[in-house]
Amino acid sequence: MAVPGAALAGSAIGTSASLCWGAMEGLLTRFRALATCSHQLSGYVPCRFHHCAPGRGKRLVLSRVFQPQNLREDQVLSLEGRSGDLTCKSQRLMLQVGLIHPASSGCYHLLPYTVRAMEKLVRVIDQEMQAIGGQKVNMPSLSPAELWRATNRWDLMGKELLRLRDRHGKEYCLGPTHEEAITALVASQKTLSYRQLPFLLYQVTRKFRDEPRPRFGLLRGREFYMKDMYTFDSSPEAARQTYSLVCDAYASLFDRLGLRCVKVQADVGSIGGTMSHEFQLPVDVGEDRFVVCHSCSFSANMETLDLSQRNCPACQGPLTETKGIELGHTFYLGTKYSSIFNAQFINIHGKPSLAEMGCYGLGVTRILAAAIEVLSTEDCIRWPGLLAPYQVCLIPPKKGSKEAAATELTEHLYDHITEAVPQLRGEVLLDDRTHLTIGNRLKDTHKFGYPFVIITGKRALEDPAHFEVWCQHTGEVTFLTKEGVMELLSQVQVV
Amino acid sequence: MAVPGAALAGSAIGTSASLCWGAMEGLLTRFRALATCSHQLSGYVPCRFHHCAPGRGKRLVLSRVFQPQNLREDQVLSLEGRSGDLTCKSQRLMLQVGLIHPASSGCYHLLPYTVRAMEKLVRVIDQEMQAIGGQKVNMPSLSPAELWRATNRWDLMGKELLRLRDRHGKEYCLGPTHEEAITALVASQKTLSYRQLPFLLYQVTRKFRDEPRPRFGLLRGREFYMKDMYTFDSSPEAARQTYSLVCDAYASLFDRLGLRCVKVQADVGSIGGTMSHEFQLPVDVGEDRFVVCHSCSFSANMETLDLSQRNCPACQGPLTETKGIELGHTFYLGTKYSSIFNAQFINIHGKPSLAEMGCYGLGVTRILAAAIEVLSTEDCIRWPGLLAPYQVCLIPPKKGSKEAAATELTEHLYDHITEAVPQLRGEVLLDDRTHLTIGNRLKDTHKFGYPFVIITGKRALEDPAHFEVWCQHTGEVTFLTKEGVMELLSQVQVV
Repeated sequence: MAVPGAALAGSAIGTSASLCWGAMEGLLTRFRALATCSHQLSGYVPCRFHHCAPGRGKRLVLSRVFQPQNLREDQVLSLEGRSGDLTCKSQRLMLQVGLIHPASSGCYHLLPYTVRAMEKLVRVIDQEMQAIGGQKVNMPSLSPAELWRATNRWDLMGKELLRLRDRHGKEYCLGPTHEEAITALVASQKTLSYRQLPFLLYQVTRKFRDEPRPRFGLLRGREFYMKDMYTFDSSPEAARQTYSLVCDAYASLFDRLGLRCVKVQADVGSIGGTMSHEFQLPVDVGEDRFVVCHSCSFSANMETLDLSQRNCPACQGPLTETKGIELGHTFYLGTKYSSIFNAQFINIHGKPSLAEMGCYGLGVTRILAAAIEVLSTEDCIRWPGLLAPYQVCLIPPKKGSKEAAATELTEHLYDHITEAVPQLRGEVLLDDRTHLTIGNRLKDTHKFGYPFVIITGKRALEDPAHFEVWCQHTGEVTFLTKEGVMELLSQVQVV
Repeated sequence: MAVPGAALAGSAIGTSASLCWGAMEGLLTRFRALATCSHQLSGYVPCRFHHCAPGRGKRLVLSRVFQPQNLREDQVLSLEGRSGDLTCKSQRLMLQVGLIHPASSGCYHLLPYTVRAMEKLVRVIDQEMQAIGGQKVNMPSLSPAELWRATNRWDLMGKELLRLRDRHGKEYCLGPTHEEAITALVASQKTLSYRQLPFLLYQVTRKFRDEPRPRFGLLRGREFYMKDMYTFDSSPEAARQTYSLVCDAYASLFDRLGLRCVKVQADVGSIGGTMSHEFQLPVDVGEDRFVVCHSCSFSANMETLDLSQRNCPACQGPLTETKGIELGHTFYLGTKYSSIFNAQFINIHGKPSLAEMGCYGLGVTRILAAAIEVLSTEDCIRWPGLLAPYQVCLIPPKKGSKEAAATELTEHLYDHITEAVPQLRGEVLLDDRTHLTIGNRLKDTHKFGYPFVIITGKRALEDPAHFEVWCQHTGEVTFLTKEGVMELLSQVQVV
């Protein structure tokens, strides 16, 4: 945040005054004058985080959030047209509380809560990818047919590729993945040196896949968000190091989300290459089958095994079969794509050499749904703490009830939290539907899965006032004073 | 940021101990135990902002940034195939410094600097939209033909619509705008009350338009990012208030970016409705023509005027004609779409009533290019301060030069900035190409347009050391001690 210009007059300037006061003062003065036009330096910060129309105060209030009103009505089945399509818990819950709304087969509108959760997930992904040197790019969805013909995938991908022609008859597909595009991009750089490598280039964008049977809501859609990273190294050894680095970053990501994924050896499929792993989240609704050996560290997607194989190929121990959802997939590609597009760099001997590549995917919208699938109960959504759309929901007393005298306390608490705990700005929602009982609203908060629910109930009338605090992840309820609430909430990590 | 668990043992707990110590301590203890699994509360923060491979330190270094190497080579013209396509300054500069790379006609890869600038722009947009109650959604690009047939735009839009069929032969277009989709979504909510309105729903997503003549780089592409907002009100009066509110937010946005847009009356085109305005940025390369009356506040796109009209229709004063780039467009739609899709709410009398709508677009990628177009010189990019991909570039001495003794000072300065000025974490780049002279690297920094360039030159050998500081927006150069540099940089506002 910028310090308003006035703050400059004090001690801060004093420290540098003895050093080169004149020069800097001139610079700062002119810089401040400039800021008046462009707001580059001004203290101007718009009020950010309220959904309320002006005059209604600046608190986020539940009654104004846009979401379908299915909580108490059984419209969910009819939403998807045929009830047979509604085949898993996350899909049902996400429809019910208004996280998604069907647009067409395998395509969903993401509603405000989901957009918030997804933006948080993308921030976690950005942190993990940038921590290992990832650089973010953004490639078009319209992908020219000639790129795909060069790798023969125009034919190989078959009906999964959504194809179209532009007004001039030129053919495109909607990118389901971008090995061709990124390799052609890197190949266009004629003066790359081995000193610049590795490059770890990634994007978080929509991908398209014409699934034969889209289902399970965001778990298997036709249009979805994916993080895809492509790496370019100067040698097979370096490329394998990069491969490990990315796998470790994926493990760290899932760990931070509290998702216990299993890294299994996998088939390379239509992407190709010589080594591949999947990050599988064990859950019954999963469409993949993998085996784990509990005697050694072996684990593999069933696709990679001989069907007659019943024991671990590494230690001959027994294999346990599990169903899983593939949340991540890594491929060591070697020079499969770089040789086709001639993606070269100048090696240490001054000679052109083909880049060794890897590619790495994370299903962004799929991770959201899978997390809900494994963490939720049958009726109540639970999010990974970091991804919860809002961290805190405050429930004021019912209008006209005995406790209504304490209504203002909730509003004060709201304001105090957002002042005293800056990371929770924009994270606190007020359930202002005060025509409903506390109990009814509490039921709804369980469904939505706010990590913390704070009720202004009977004990708010005590001196000092005590708030009823529900910690959804532990299922615990306790009574805390305002100071206690602050103490607790100041611990919450927000991304 | 989470405070590590250990910090809890001290005074903070003490404050609440007298109030309800037992209950809260239990809660905190269990909550902390939980955090050990999910990292919800742990002190774990990955190192975020470096492009360097492990072992190379954690500073962002220019030599590792992925960008084409066109700075000193004249590859720009050949990049676009035909030199005739390269028709404006922003396109040439953005290609030259590696901000974009052509993918196919009217489609560009956005390279790392541009992605950073765009993410900053999206944050500014989010702030402005959420400040007036905007809620973010995300609608699919695949838009079913039946929606567009309902409004007759399947035919009206003609060749601008990119169309395709899925594996079952079902027809879709790639959404160039989403009036149909959002209205159908809101219409699906059967129990909306007037009390919930207005809804201001927006998204920032890729849009598709098969332009007959894509050109000017990101100014007129076929696949581009747009912010589109749709508003739903309970009466024409309320809808007009919302319309003003959004227009004011647009004005505030452009003001913060230092872009002097003119709001002009505009044609409703294929979107329809009864009132429309454009936010035009005056610049010669602009493809729109508008007039301004300097006697009164009248201004209008030429399309809305009778061609014979030479004087202001409001005050008969003379009109000045200007070319402009349309950065924003607002429409008051009335019930044009809500009546087709039956988007209703329950009004104050308990009766169903059609929602009054507005729609509002901002060209996200276009704003980036337009800003570069108006702010840059012929050779040097200048960004709106808030959007500069990196705020600071540090230039250490040339290897083997006299000043090389001060090399470490640059690294210390880097670390000190990112420690002492938290908002600049991830915003400081080190130009580690020390085989080049300071002068050559300085020339490059002018092209890239970092707001601040800090050189460790001759006067770094003085006691105390002085750094040469270039403020690109004012064109000023001054010499500052480390304290002076901190003082200056602590003023920089980052979004």
